[in-house]
Amino acid sequence: MKQEHQGNLLNPLPVALVGANVDGKPNYLVIGYISPFDFGKHIFFSLYKKRHTRKGIHENGTFSVNIPSEVLIEETKLCGSKSGREFDKSTLFDTFYGALGTAPMIRECPINMECEVVEVLDYDPNEGIIGRVVKSYINSECIVDGKLDIRRARPFVWATGGDYNYYRLGDRIE
Amino acid sequence: MKQEHQGNLLNPLPVALVGANVDGKPNYLVIGYISPFDFGKHIFFSLYKKRHTRKGIHENGTFSVNIPSEVLIEETKLCGSKSGREFDKSTLFDTFYGALGTAPMIRECPINMECEVVEVLDYDPNEGIIGRVVKSYINSECIVDGKLDIRRARPFVWATGGDYNYYRLGDRIE
Repeated sequence: MKQEHQGNLLNPLPVALVGANVDGKPNYLVIGYISPFDFGKHIFFSLYKKRHTRKGIHENGTFSVNIPSEVLIEETKLCGSKSGREFDKSTLFDTFYGALGTAPMIRECPINMECEVVEVLDYDPNEGIIGRVVKSYINSECIVDGKLDIRRARPFVWATGGDYNYYRLGDRIE
Repeated sequence: MKQEHQGNLLNPLPVALVGANVDGKPNYLVIGYISPFDFGKHIFFSLYKKRHTRKGIHENGTFSVNIPSEVLIEETKLCGSKSGREFDKSTLFDTFYGALGTAPMIRECPINMECEVVEVLDYDPNEGIIGRVVKSYINSECIVDGKLDIRRARPFVWATGGDYNYYRLGDRIE
């Protein structure tokens, strides 16, 4: 039987750490409402305006997207529960920079993308941020026969709408 | 070691069937680049302009998002491989309508959302479609103690960027 439901039901969702330099220091937040766009040449994500990282995204016009492995779940939870206003998240990870120079990326994450902001949509109290993907990086151990094998990145996903749990990636459906 | 990579690396991603009435008949396509937006009050997805379903989305200003279970994987593959121009996808599923009246939803999918188009972004050859979620529906067997348990919906995810496989949802991380 179908029943009406309040709250997001589009599940499960990828978990990403979005990074930006705020006042010259790397900051990272957890974004769960994020999607590739335009064949993956762009990325879209939903950003709550009160997030500390927003200041850096607007100031620099750049951000990064980092896909954490399951071994980083505690650091991910910390990034999701504490604000960069009160906690220096730059100490949690080894940060590196790429072509843009201002989009801090997390070396411990097997997958990283650096992006340039091209459009900001105002859906108060949230913003839709659209970035052009300038360069993407992957740990070589995630490549098998020249192709990505996502299982080797050991990513995790989450569910919203009342569930609010993290899940492992399951078996490949052959 | 980090290496540069071409193609989308934001993974894994949810698999959704987006529905619209095209020339008065329900049509469904597979969308893998989709995200909740604005606390889930809106949905964003990336739509290739050549898709047959686009005509219906523009004509009616409405669409649906349906989350298939693993038992629907063959129907999902068919929706992803054939165009509504050459194959009548309305015969694949039992369609129902909700408050909007023009957004066809798939009864066999445990999760359904009906949406009203509020903005279309032109990123030629793709469009970013933003819809307001008008009503959401869930099968009652997916609710445990008044809350969604996403495992009961048996959704699946996919990976792009070279992997291009479907995966089951794995264990809940406690």
